[in-house]
Amino acid sequence: MADHQNRDKIRRKIHEIIFEADTDSGKVFDEVLLILIGLSVIAAAIETIPNIHHDLQHNLIIFEWIFTLIFTIEYILRIYSTLRPYKYITSFYGVVDLLAIVPTYLSLFFAGSQALIIIRALRLLRIFRIFKMGKYVDSSQIIIRSMKLSLPKITVFLYFILLVVCIFGAIMYLVEGSTNPSYDSIPRSIYWAIVTITTVGFGDITPNTFVGQFLSAILMILGYAVIAVPTGIVSSEIITSRRKSISTQTCMYCSAEGHDDDAKYCKYCGEQINPVTEEDEG
Amino acid sequence: MADHQNRDKIRRKIHEIIFEADTDSGKVFDEVLLILIGLSVIAAAIETIPNIHHDLQHNLIIFEWIFTLIFTIEYILRIYSTLRPYKYITSFYGVVDLLAIVPTYLSLFFAGSQALIIIRALRLLRIFRIFKMGKYVDSSQIIIRSMKLSLPKITVFLYFILLVVCIFGAIMYLVEGSTNPSYDSIPRSIYWAIVTITTVGFGDITPNTFVGQFLSAILMILGYAVIAVPTGIVSSEIITSRRKSISTQTCMYCSAEGHDDDAKYCKYCGEQINPVTEEDEG
Amino acid sequence: MADHQNRDKIRRKIHEIIFEADTDSGKVFDEVLLILIGLSVIAAAIETIPNIHHDLQHNLIIFEWIFTLIFTIEYILRIYSTLRPYKYITSFYGVVDLLAIVPTYLSLFFAGSQALIIIRALRLLRIFRIFKMGKYVDSSQIIIRSMKLSLPKITVFLYFILLVVCIFGAIMYLVEGSTNPSYDSIPRSIYWAIVTITTVGFGDITPNTFVGQFLSAILMILGYAVIAVPTGIVSSEIITSRRKSISTQTCMYCSAEGHDDDAKYCKYCGEQINPVTEEDEG
Amino acid sequence: MADHQNRDKIRRKIHEIIFEADTDSGKVFDEVLLILIGLSVIAAAIETIPNIHHDLQHNLIIFEWIFTLIFTIEYILRIYSTLRPYKYITSFYGVVDLLAIVPTYLSLFFAGSQALIIIRALRLLRIFRIFKMGKYVDSSQIIIRSMKLSLPKITVFLYFILLVVCIFGAIMYLVEGSTNPSYDSIPRSIYWAIVTITTVGFGDITPNTFVGQFLSAILMILGYAVIAVPTGIVSSEIITSRRKSISTQTCMYCSAEGHDDDAKYCKYCGEQINPVTEEDEG
Repeated sequence: MADHQNRDKIRRKIHEIIFEADTDSGKVFDEVLLILIGLSVIAAAIETIPNIHHDLQHNLIIFEWIFTLIFTIEYILRIYSTLRPYKYITSFYGVVDLLAIVPTYLSLFFAGSQALIIIRALRLLRIFRIFKMGKYVDSSQIIIRSMKLSLPKITVFLYFILLVVCIFGAIMYLVEGSTNPSYDSIPRSIYWAIVTITTVGFGDITPNTFVGQFLSAILMILGYAVIAVPTGIVSSEIITSRRKSISTQTCMYCSAEGHDDDAKYCKYCGEQINPVTEEDEG
Repeated sequence: MADHQNRDKIRRKIHEIIFEADTDSGKVFDEVLLILIGLSVIAAAIETIPNIHHDLQHNLIIFEWIFTLIFTIEYILRIYSTLRPYKYITSFYGVVDLLAIVPTYLSLFFAGSQALIIIRALRLLRIFRIFKMGKYVDSSQIIIRSMKLSLPKITVFLYFILLVVCIFGAIMYLVEGSTNPSYDSIPRSIYWAIVTITTVGFGDITPNTFVGQFLSAILMILGYAVIAVPTGIVSSEIITSRRKSISTQTCMYCSAEGHDDDAKYCKYCGEQINPVTEEDEG
Repeated sequence: MADHQNRDKIRRKIHEIIFEADTDSGKVFDEVLLILIGLSVIAAAIETIPNIHHDLQHNLIIFEWIFTLIFTIEYILRIYSTLRPYKYITSFYGVVDLLAIVPTYLSLFFAGSQALIIIRALRLLRIFRIFKMGKYVDSSQIIIRSMKLSLPKITVFLYFILLVVCIFGAIMYLVEGSTNPSYDSIPRSIYWAIVTITTVGFGDITPNTFVGQFLSAILMILGYAVIAVPTGIVSSEIITSRRKSISTQTCMYCSAEGHDDDAKYCKYCGEQINPVTEEDEG
Repeated sequence: MADHQNRDKIRRKIHEIIFEADTDSGKVFDEVLLILIGLSVIAAAIETIPNIHHDLQHNLIIFEWIFTLIFTIEYILRIYSTLRPYKYITSFYGVVDLLAIVPTYLSLFFAGSQALIIIRALRLLRIFRIFKMGKYVDSSQIIIRSMKLSLPKITVFLYFILLVVCIFGAIMYLVEGSTNPSYDSIPRSIYWAIVTITTVGFGDITPNTFVGQFLSAILMILGYAVIAVPTGIVSSEIITSRRKSISTQTCMYCSAEGHDDDAKYCKYCGEQINPVTEEDEG
């Protein structure tokens, strides 16, 4: 019985370290884990460099196995310590954590399989945990909330951009297509229009004719000017969401939400918000 | 008589589905139509890829005809169901809808006509309907209103950009023209200046001389810094048009200001805002 | 005597048309003039295209002379109609107006002189008149005022950018210089750094080594992120200058300025602002 | 004794000129020094241009020595005039000031040493003094404060960008790697992804396959749209840090709010704001 209690205690302790970001040990665990994930990703990336020195490649494979073993132990401990292992295993992070270790084991059987690299790259998704770390939670939430609020407007903006690049792509195909082999199809012309309107400007496809260059100039200035639109939208969302810092309080009488932080009375029914708290303070 | 009434009912039903975006069936129709337009445009774009597989091209032509038939039926139903068909036919969307189907029929007579593709691309304009769809209406209107309010300032900004690129184009023609065949005329130099100030930077035309590179550097930094101007203009328009929706009402009892537009009670003292107006409405 | 009065009347009429933008005829004159300036600049630009058709070049020269004659007449009328001709001749626009017509006459004596083109390009400066036209005055002033207020901050920002590109230029010269002929001097490396940080990215100079590409990546992300700084500065200036729409009133008692539009009492000495106006309204 | 006092006076005078930016002579000294630093950096940069004219190089070396001698005298005077020379010598600017003169002296012993150039480039760091100059102090502090406040959000944003470029880099390596030698390793593909998402677009590495171009288009639009996020963050920080300087005081007589920080009288009713505080000060 004491043994069982002891095991339970260890289990709870492991859970606290691995899953909770509030405790000191939990924070240290999170940071060490993130550094390991980062290093393992860098190692996997370097491994793909051609003509790499033989010794370095040898060392990278050793590192690869060390990282995989650590992540395997971590994965087992996560399943062991959680009360509902099936829920964790089937969760987003559970699947990502498993995919982070599987490719290395599979490489024993299917040597040199290219497709495994992409799965190994999934290990990067584990870095998303960073946004759950204490010091970044607030910033992440402000960004995510602003993005969510901006989404319909950004969508409309992207539809507009899509329309413009399709129309310019089609026109440029007609204008340049006959003399310029770079514009040999509409999809390629649309690719060029995207490269141009986003001001990326690779230069792999460029107009030669006077009309083509004139149309390009219009597209560039358009891209240069309309970038103001998403920027203005997101700016206004962030500023508004800051100014209001809308309270999460709900009126007890009419269930209305969206009260300002400094509101003492419900703006819809006129009753006090949180009267109990008021009295507690008094 | 009953037959006539029945026909009228069908007609009204069709009108409701095709023209109105508020009803459920209207929404479904809009979304299906948009997907069909998107697919037909993608098909038309793929068709232009050279050396495309023969079977795929064959299928694309079949798709093309299916889309055209559907759009033809839709066009006829629109004319049939509307009470003022001439108004629809001569309206912007009426012309676009007609232009979307005509090229395919024309291709029966004028095979391989390149120019028809550009007309087919007009079908994309139908996507503008997206901005009339329920979930995007608000966002579209905010963007359009902000753009309209920013227009005079953006125009002044664009005149300034135009001036700068003309002056830099002329100077670069003088500086680089004699040694660099890329700057062989002022229009080409202006094209380069636009590519540079908008930070697109294709790299098809680049300065070789020291003076040319020095002037380019100034132009780039100018372009990099002045992008702040349209962005600031649009941001301020969007923020201002949002802030305006904060009511100018003042509470009669505690003189507090800054109530939301929809507030009925003062959020600071709980008394009614504008009780008289309330009674007037009552 | 009557003749003298008549001449005076004509003179005043000409002055009204040419110099004043408020009257209807003045507006028409301004717009026609701007279109002529635009056309003359376009003609001058097209003239520089090599291998241009002989007939077109012939026509362009004729146009050139027509524009020059019109601008000459305009210049003479300006001197004639103004009361202080010397003041106009020595003013900025007076000099620009003269420089706009001189090159064509000089071309009679010094045929094919390259240097004349740059002077001819000065004709563009006449377009600055656009910012004095009624419908653009307000927008121009908001932009100019915001730019002026942002100037010290933008200057600090540009010093920072200058520092960064110099440091990165020097480092890249050391890192890439030995193996990459594109980075053969520090000025050229600094030019590359400017091309990169402003996100122009011509691609005429690109890093080859791993360290060089790594440093480039840092420079790019820096340039991508710090663009937010001037944008934020200008946005805040425009928003602030709108919100305040600071009154031009000066307190009669303490000479303080910068009162809000809705201020009735001086915020520094407590005396009424514009008490007379108050009474007039009362 | 008088001699000692005299020396002390000279010392204090030197300290005032060299270290203090408030006095007129101090301002002149700062500006002359900055121009000299700028010139010395330009000279050092020009010196690296290959095939430079022999005479110019000769002059540059002379200039180099003149600048070094001036900076040496300045360094000695700084040590002499300050009361705590060790504190200055070990401070950031003390080290930078020393590093600015050492390379030239070292070049006497180690001729042509490349590594010395990078140390010489450190002289640029002296330009950071510009941000301590009177007219730029306020602007610098606003920018620095806004940057500090934005830092956690910008960090989250950069982590997100890092994630996206790693994932796109890995995918592009798989998609393009086999047919396109430009994507021969994941680090190179990540470098390309950074070039693309930041809209720099060198064009040294570009996708050839249809899938690769499609993915590039997504990456470009992403980079084009998410630039709105840091811009929005910094804009909101700058605007908020400005707005805060609006006083939170309320007029005791008319309850009006929104007074400026420096307001002493209510701008709506003309009564004193915070009369008690006034008396306290008196």
